[in-house]
Amino acid sequence: MSPGAEPGITAPHGFRAAGVSCGIKAKGLDLALIVSDAPASAAAVFTTNRAQAAPILVSRRRLEASAGRAAAIVVNSGCANACTGPDGLEHAGAMADLAAAALDCDPSGVLVASTGVIGVKLDMGKIGRGIASASGALSRAGGPDAARAIMTTDPFPKEVSVEIDTPAGAFRVGGIAKGSGMIEPMMATMLGFVTTDAAVEPALLQRALKATADDTFNAISVDGECSTNDCVFALANGASGVRLGEPEYALLAGALRQVCEPLAIGIVRGGEGATKLVTVRVTGGTSNADARRAARAIANSLLVKTAIHGGDPNWGRLVAVAGRSGADFVPDAAAVRIGPIELFSGGAPHDERSPEAAVYLKGTDIVVEVDLGTGGSGSSQMWTCDLSAEYVRINAEYRT
Amino acid sequence: MSPGAEPGITAPHGFRAAGVSCGIKAKGLDLALIVSDAPASAAAVFTTNRAQAAPILVSRRRLEASAGRAAAIVVNSGCANACTGPDGLEHAGAMADLAAAALDCDPSGVLVASTGVIGVKLDMGKIGRGIASASGALSRAGGPDAARAIMTTDPFPKEVSVEIDTPAGAFRVGGIAKGSGMIEPMMATMLGFVTTDAAVEPALLQRALKATADDTFNAISVDGECSTNDCVFALANGASGVRLGEPEYALLAGALRQVCEPLAIGIVRGGEGATKLVTVRVTGGTSNADARRAARAIANSLLVKTAIHGGDPNWGRLVAVAGRSGADFVPDAAAVRIGPIELFSGGAPHDERSPEAAVYLKGTDIVVEVDLGTGGSGSSQMWTCDLSAEYVRINAEYRT
Repeated sequence: MSPGAEPGITAPHGFRAAGVSCGIKAKGLDLALIVSDAPASAAAVFTTNRAQAAPILVSRRRLEASAGRAAAIVVNSGCANACTGPDGLEHAGAMADLAAAALDCDPSGVLVASTGVIGVKLDMGKIGRGIASASGALSRAGGPDAARAIMTTDPFPKEVSVEIDTPAGAFRVGGIAKGSGMIEPMMATMLGFVTTDAAVEPALLQRALKATADDTFNAISVDGECSTNDCVFALANGASGVRLGEPEYALLAGALRQVCEPLAIGIVRGGEGATKLVTVRVTGGTSNADARRAARAIANSLLVKTAIHGGDPNWGRLVAVAGRSGADFVPDAAAVRIGPIELFSGGAPHDERSPEAAVYLKGTDIVVEVDLGTGGSGSSQMWTCDLSAEYVRINAEYRT
Repeated sequence: MSPGAEPGITAPHGFRAAGVSCGIKAKGLDLALIVSDAPASAAAVFTTNRAQAAPILVSRRRLEASAGRAAAIVVNSGCANACTGPDGLEHAGAMADLAAAALDCDPSGVLVASTGVIGVKLDMGKIGRGIASASGALSRAGGPDAARAIMTTDPFPKEVSVEIDTPAGAFRVGGIAKGSGMIEPMMATMLGFVTTDAAVEPALLQRALKATADDTFNAISVDGECSTNDCVFALANGASGVRLGEPEYALLAGALRQVCEPLAIGIVRGGEGATKLVTVRVTGGTSNADARRAARAIANSLLVKTAIHGGDPNWGRLVAVAGRSGADFVPDAAAVRIGPIELFSGGAPHDERSPEAAVYLKGTDIVVEVDLGTGGSGSSQMWTCDLSAEYVRINAEYRT
């Protein structure tokens, strides 16, 4: 592996991108196009929220209609096109159709995503002008602009790419993502777009994307919320000439993970009010799913997140949250570590090590580990951030 | 129903109580005794946390051994006796035994509860002196002192009593509770103690207490946490001469609710950093359990709680949280009301009513309602509080 020539989605060959400003946001880039020169295999992971935004519904249908093929993705920020009724569905479809017309490709091969305000309709005039402008600006150098155009309140763009050498030649994977900006003004949305110039059948790409998302985009939490618009798309266009089939599944999934994990961690680092990245590791579970249950409860615990924010090595909160998480938990055999420092094990505290742990917590990259004590080999890892008064300030502000 | 003569647990006849200071907390009352003059039927609801504190384990065993009979409850604050290993179990048992000896009653008839610091052992010298002092101070006027002695960082004591007239005469129910003070220093603990001078068989008392707790103490959330020490006990001593059997179940459960609901709401009002009481009502669910799922997700949502704190009538957050809650949810038929103001219905927003809702949110008692839109009759009600920067400040402070 080595860094790709381009930083993000245009690092893989045969992809172009653009990010333009069309006036949906008050300022800044707000419309992105990601285009494969040739029709590509496509895969997607969508929000599990029962209130699904119009672009989610439209993209899902188009992926089904094309049997997992797509050539382009059109994305806007500033307006989520969620809770917008029948008009919203029509607008999301029209947005994809306008992009297909501008790119002269099959409409079923254009996916669409939106992020921003809930309950406000898309201004289709602006969207149309943005698509015209973006399709004229497409280039291999357009990845960074696309990464900026999908942002809402993200403090920085998130772009990653890798190049993987194989006996058959090199292939590349690139990606961009946006994260949790809940102020603008309703709900966080997480969007991720991944491209590769490997040749991969749609079903295999879907399997690898789903597995990768479970360990990366679905293993992060800023505040436990799940948006109406969350989605991750992957396109594989084969431009490298490297074909990845079933025997190369691990290679494909590993390459996707090399891109998606830093993107996901970037979302957490950019979480609202976040001052520390917290890696939550849970071991000793009766199953991976059970360990994930405990990891998720810890990653979402206000008491844990505020303690870490305050630099308090409060192992008791970790024990209590693991205990209430629904995961099998044997307190007398459990252990809690903050960084390398074991503060609780065998049912007994080691509070004499608290001062050492308090020093460790002054850092900005924190690892907390809980062994559930069942003797099982189930494990899970998640990433979260601390909870600061700044988060409350940001999210309590009245929309103006 | 009329207010009882005494404010809390000593309003029912045949109960005495005391609250004393024994030095476990740096200052203030920290040991309470609640005693029935005659052996009483007893019932309990315990924390579902897998990490259960020693007093929980001891009380559970004694209730089983006595087949649901008890004459006294001994409680300390300032030390949770949780995560304290075998010594902790021995101490909790000794605490109950010391109370039994001081009261000259069967040790299996004494229940024990603790709240305070996790991972610190009980000072049994102090506990012993406290029990001696409290048993000498028992009186019908001791309820308020007991209510204060169980507090940790609660801003005010919580006491309620009611008197219920029946054709067979009047009976009384009283109760005290303590709430969510997570600063001192590890984890909130909720304790509730309910007394009645009705005569009730243990099994019926248990059924009524469990049902009541589900709708009151288990229907509140300050921060979604569940402690190692949470418990609610009820004692029924029959001193009124009024016997409540199966035909009077609704009367019994109703009376318990009249006490437990205001106690539970008092816990929320006293939540850390809370400035508003929020009643979450969910209707239109496929079942009550499903509606509860949505209500719980809303009551624990950081985005909802910060929006209410900031006075932002952010219906989109309610839609999105209901959508991700796991409950059946039909967005196009769903509705969201903030107070009396409908902001979303039939898949469409009514943002023109936002200013009116913003004025409503300036109040301190807020009702938010979500109709899940399934057409079902499942409903649920929970109480929570807003999330303020003060909560973060309190819970981020290093234990010193």
